[in-house]
Amino acid sequence: MKTEASIQPKQEIVLTGDRTTGKLHLGHYVGSLKSRIQLQQQYETYIMLADVQALTTHFHNPGLLSQSVRQVALDYLSAGIDPERATIFVQSMVPEIAELTCMYSMFVTVSSLRHNPTVKHEAKERGYDDLYYGFLGYPISQAADITFCKASLVPAGEDQIPHIEQTRRIVRRFNELYAPVLVEPQILVGERLEGLDGGSKMSKSLGNAICLDASSEEVRTQIRRAKTDPARVHKTDPGHPDICTIYGYHSIFRPDRCEDIRENCMKGTIGCAACKAMVTAAIEHVLEPIRERRELYKHRTKDIDDILMAGTERARSVARQTMGEVREAMGIDYFK
Amino acid sequence: MKTEASIQPKQEIVLTGDRTTGKLHLGHYVGSLKSRIQLQQQYETYIMLADVQALTTHFHNPGLLSQSVRQVALDYLSAGIDPERATIFVQSMVPEIAELTCMYSMFVTVSSLRHNPTVKHEAKERGYDDLYYGFLGYPISQAADITFCKASLVPAGEDQIPHIEQTRRIVRRFNELYAPVLVEPQILVGERLEGLDGGSKMSKSLGNAICLDASSEEVRTQIRRAKTDPARVHKTDPGHPDICTIYGYHSIFRPDRCEDIRENCMKGTIGCAACKAMVTAAIEHVLEPIRERRELYKHRTKDIDDILMAGTERARSVARQTMGEVREAMGIDYFK
Repeated sequence: MKTEASIQPKQEIVLTGDRTTGKLHLGHYVGSLKSRIQLQQQYETYIMLADVQALTTHFHNPGLLSQSVRQVALDYLSAGIDPERATIFVQSMVPEIAELTCMYSMFVTVSSLRHNPTVKHEAKERGYDDLYYGFLGYPISQAADITFCKASLVPAGEDQIPHIEQTRRIVRRFNELYAPVLVEPQILVGERLEGLDGGSKMSKSLGNAICLDASSEEVRTQIRRAKTDPARVHKTDPGHPDICTIYGYHSIFRPDRCEDIRENCMKGTIGCAACKAMVTAAIEHVLEPIRERRELYKHRTKDIDDILMAGTERARSVARQTMGEVREAMGIDYFK
Repeated sequence: MKTEASIQPKQEIVLTGDRTTGKLHLGHYVGSLKSRIQLQQQYETYIMLADVQALTTHFHNPGLLSQSVRQVALDYLSAGIDPERATIFVQSMVPEIAELTCMYSMFVTVSSLRHNPTVKHEAKERGYDDLYYGFLGYPISQAADITFCKASLVPAGEDQIPHIEQTRRIVRRFNELYAPVLVEPQILVGERLEGLDGGSKMSKSLGNAICLDASSEEVRTQIRRAKTDPARVHKTDPGHPDICTIYGYHSIFRPDRCEDIRENCMKGTIGCAACKAMVTAAIEHVLEPIRERRELYKHRTKDIDDILMAGTERARSVARQTMGEVREAMGIDYFK
């Protein structure tokens, strides 16, 4: 893992992960996966299959987790996460994360969780009225995820900013209460990808996502049906790229040529169909190597399990080390 | 609710414990320790040094825990808990308790915790305005304590009734969501002992307690200063036993002769000093064998540590078993 990186001015430890509630999509790729693939080249990288966090919203559907853990792992490997460089592990199999969660719970107030804008937004989106305790507290569990391996960098979407802030507060409080054991992480904010319906973030639960395992045919159909500028009826009508989902995709997937598109759209010299065809091609360019790696991995179930078991064992050994330091700092390492 | 009379000859598993925030006192003895000493003769008994729960109110004072864990263990052994019969263990050293706490958190609502009368009372008593998340959720942690060993019987004070009810709801919900793995516990309600100041439960933090390690001299002084019927100035004034703390002690420590005391007090034929002397003698009768056992144990620090380590290892092996069943029920035992 850490090899050439040691010549870098700063030795980051990277942690990220995804709730295992279904397949990953382009929103995950743009928001975080793309960064991880770069970061793993340089830094010690931990990638977590967040099945415990998945339970905060899917506790009533446990069968889903078992299936999704392997599905997301396959998505990771297909997207280019290299198990020789990055440690892919299962959250529920690292008990130290649960232990740290319980410890940090002692000094985080209920109101700081209630005022977390991402928790509020998600609760509203899911129609939660009376919150579940585990759901309200998932930012604490995230602090445990990030700190067990002393991660200094978390590549994630902008909705994660309040959570990383919460983690930073927890780290400072712990270090001040006990001993300077934990590391304050920084967020590396990824791009936000709009959903195909326009107006909200790409999300599987909103049904507006292009999955990483989508076929060429599916991508073409999904982009063809995607929302554009509703005021534009004829090809020659001047378009409004800033309110067009497809223009947003241009800026992410074809950034070098999106100024041309903007001009032509506003002048009415390019139609939506042609514009969509170009975006489709750009997305295909991203998905093609992912499909190829998926072909290599998809029947190697046993190998994937081995990768996850080995990764989990590595993560546990780091977690044991940190938990030992935490116990010592808190004075609860009774029988040394 | 089960009373002492209704303990059937079935095979109960007993769990109780105490927060390790200082020495135990007569309130603990009357409320739960006395039952445990009887129950250990017959049943598989787990007694927990609740250091994680102690953190819910004492996270800012970690040095206290290390000291109190051994202090409370010494109190247990002195009171007659037999380490050959009962498993005495340290809560923070059983990670499965933290794991179960996190799992149960998913399906317990914040409002059910907010409405727990014991949590409300304790928060008010401690002057907590903005609750800490771990404090609000400690009944979930208690459910994890009780269920990891599948305890069916919890000898505890009446203030624990709402918590046991919460545990029972958690057990039913888990068994219904996943598989019938967990056991619904019953509470065995112990007697409540008033504090020396009258009016509130005996409690170390209120400074109204007789500690189990009190000397004869200390007991005598504390009882002499204890609050009685304030209307009674002269020995011949008729007393009101129902509002007298000392009369309450008679009914608990000398139940067979308390009717006599009641009559004589109401008739003004016994003075408070004589009445207190009798209660002092009865308490001394309880404390004397405790002092003798304390003399045997108090310098055997290494033996006490060995007892706790062996007990914790036994508890962990049971916890691992239950956690395995929980994982299987939830479908998160991925790599069997």
